[in-house]
Order: sequence, then structure tokens, then C-alpha cells
Amino acid sequence: MPREHYKAVLFDVQGTLTDFRTTLLDHGRSVLGGRAAELEWPSTVDEWRAAYRTAVAELSGSGQWRSARSIYADGLTDILRRRGFEDVVTADEIERLTDGWEQLRPWPDAAAGLRKIRRSHLVAALSNADLSAVLSTSRACGFDWDALFSAQQFRAFKPHESTYLGAAGLLGVDPAGILMVASHRYDLDAAAALGLGTAFVSRPDEYGPGGRADRASAGDYDVVVESIEELAGALNA
Amino acid sequence: MPREHYKAVLFDVQGTLTDFRTTLLDHGRSVLGGRAAELEWPSTVDEWRAAYRTAVAELSGSGQWRSARSIYADGLTDILRRRGFEDVVTADEIERLTDGWEQLRPWPDAAAGLRKIRRSHLVAALSNADLSAVLSTSRACGFDWDALFSAQQFRAFKPHESTYLGAAGLLGVDPAGILMVASHRYDLDAAAALGLGTAFVSRPDEYGPGGRADRASAGDYDVVVESIEELAGALNA
Repeated sequence: MPREHYKAVLFDVQGTLTDFRTTLLDHGRSVLGGRAAELEWPSTVDEWRAAYRTAVAELSGSGQWRSARSIYADGLTDILRRRGFEDVVTADEIERLTDGWEQLRPWPDAAAGLRKIRRSHLVAALSNADLSAVLSTSRACGFDWDALFSAQQFRAFKPHESTYLGAAGLLGVDPAGILMVASHRYDLDAAAALGLGTAFVSRPDEYGPGGRADRASAGDYDVVVESIEELAGALNA
Repeated sequence: MPREHYKAVLFDVQGTLTDFRTTLLDHGRSVLGGRAAELEWPSTVDEWRAAYRTAVAELSGSGQWRSARSIYADGLTDILRRRGFEDVVTADEIERLTDGWEQLRPWPDAAAGLRKIRRSHLVAALSNADLSAVLSTSRACGFDWDALFSAQQFRAFKPHESTYLGAAGLLGVDPAGILMVASHRYDLDAAAALGLGTAFVSRPDEYGPGGRADRASAGDYDVVVESIEELAGALNA
């Protein structure tokens, strides 16, 4: 299908449109103050995100869902206990740290690119985060959606097929008329297997310096770009 | 609760924010040409809407859902047959006439009022229409939502409680922190019974001259207004 003929564009949010790592680094320093250094906060954030990804992959595989917020809160509790810091951070502080995932900062190209694409296409979020988290992040980032879909609505996490097909059904658009946009190969591979178009957005800094962000070459997906602004150009938006 | 303390405002769409009757009158004349007079198109539209409301009320009562579009298409087919016009309008034209419900025109105060309220509150649609219909109407009207909820997502029609409570759960807001806005008493009465705040917007022309639009007096609901702009003022938005 010619690129400009996609009717709807579905966006992953955490990582693809938002820079969760630096947001959480700053948020943690603000909540923890001097204890951030003691806790080796950057490595804690990296382990925290990795634990979330593992938990979500397991739940997705078994067709189960639970609140992403609860996964984050439980994950941080486990990490702090394992590292011997259970008495350094209170339960209330764990909740406040978890709040950080609900007001992520955008990558610099994201809001402007989305606005351009929305002029000519339906744009919708399809996120594994809870709907309220996508909503508050979207308000903070200035992302305006035609519709906002969360794993919470489908009671399943990406890459479970019911998320992509559920969004397509609610949009009333055939999978072939939808372009899925993400910086994660697992997300696009699942979408492609169901007949959606795929756009890979490179986010080399997603996991920070030396982090193992996914990479893709031209041809791996229908579109491979470096930014949402570049995607807007590819869609003639 | 003081009015300005609602965190989220949920809006009915058809009738409350959009003038479906004049939209459908014009749309039908455009599709049918000279046959609109023969069919007594205005009375057909009124009967069509009434048949939809009856079908939705029955389905809501029994906890069932089916596509609002299919209810509209089947409803018009029945009405034309009953009136002896089954050979005057083709099946394809019935689909095109039904398209009219998916690009409704706004009441003049709706888009500006919504924009004002959204500055200080979460705003979301909660409509019995299919999600794709709310979405295309919202684009046509310039309604920007934080989230968009349809009976389709909850597999139940308003006034079934799973629609109001489903929206509250996805928003992550207690029912008492939500204001439901509608021009229909049945919708607000159901919301109030579940603990939501209620705002009645008077739409005296909803069913045209001499039509029986719902009315309310000050005190019947938490807020009673004549327009969405007036509602914005009441919310200090």
C-alpha cells in the first residue's frame, strides 16, 4: 500500500514518543534528594524498566493483564529489597516515584510530528501503560489524539493480538489501513504479522548511553525513520 | 462537591454537543434529491431517531450491545418498508444516509466551550454511538478530547452502569470526581445514581420545532445550563 494511503496511525508512547529514562532520572532525584546517589538511581531505573518489560512480556504471553502502575510499583519494591534499600525508601515514596511514569517528557520531535500527521490521518495511541497514565503524559506533552487506546481496555498487553485488532475494530479500519509506529521491534513484528503496516522510529538514547536500543535497517519495516517529523514527511502529511 | 473540584467532565455527544436533526435533514436531501419531499424526509428522520432510542433502551436494559450503525441502518430500512418506500431507496443509499450520523454538525457553543473546559479539566466523550462515528464527528466539529469512550468499548449502552463506571475506571477517577454532561434526563439520572455529578444542557431544538426536548429546572441536577460555554463558566474553566 502506498504510504499516504494509511487511514490511521497508531503510536506506541513509552520510548517511542517519550524519553522515559531522563524523566525518571530527574523525578527520582527530586523525590529522593541525596539518597539518589546512595541508591545508584540510574542503574535502578534501568533495572526497573527491564523488570517491567519482563513482567509485561510474561503476562502478554499468557493473555493476562494487570495495571501497569501496579507492575511498576511492585517492581521497584522488589529491586529496592534485593539491593538492601527497603528501609531507605518508604512505601509512600515508592508510590511517588511510580508517579514518574505518568508524566513522561516527549522526545523533541514528537508533538510537532504528531500534529502534522493528524492533519491528514487519524492518530491514536496504543500503549501498554494504563489509560490514565497515557492521558496525563499526553496532556503534559501536548499530544492530541483522535483516540487513545491502552492495554487496560483490551485486558491484554502488546504484543497480544487483541490489542492491535481491538484498536483496529474500534477505529473501524482494516489492519492493512493502519500504520503501527514504535521504537521496539517486538511491537512492530507483532503488528506486521496481523497485517498492519509498520514504522520503526529509531530512539538510540532510549536506554541511555551504552543502552541497547533496538535498531533497524531500511527494508526491515515499511518505514524506518529517525523522528516523528521524518515520519510525517514519509506519509506526505 | 464544589463545582470546580470535578477532575473529569464526560460528555454525551449526539444531541448534547451536535445538532443531529438538521445535519440529517440536509444530508438526506443531498443523497435523495427530489425524493426527499416524496418520503416526507423530516418526519422520517424523527421516526428514525425515535426508533434508534427505543432499540438502544431495550438493548441497554438487557445488557446487550450491537453496533449503533447497524441499528440506524436497520431502523431506516424498516421505516421505509413500513411506509411503502422500499423500492424508492436502494440499499446503497440507506448506507449513505446512515453515514450522516457519523459527521454531525456541532451546536454553535460546543467546540469553544469544550476547549475552555479542557484547560482545567480532563474532558472525555461517553457516547452510545460507535467509536468511529464519535471520532469522525469530533474531527468534523473540532472537538479535542483527552479520551473518547463509546458504548462499543463497554459492550453496553448508556444508561447501563458499566458505561459510566467503565469510563471512570479507565480515567482513574472516582465517580464523585466526574461530571456527566447531557441534554437527556435518562443519561444524567443513571449517572447520578452511580455517584457522578450531573450537568444538564438544554437543547430545546434537539427534535426541531415542536419537538419534545427534555427540560430541567435549577436544582434538578448539580448544574443546569443553556450551553457548553455557560458550563465552562460554572466550572470556573
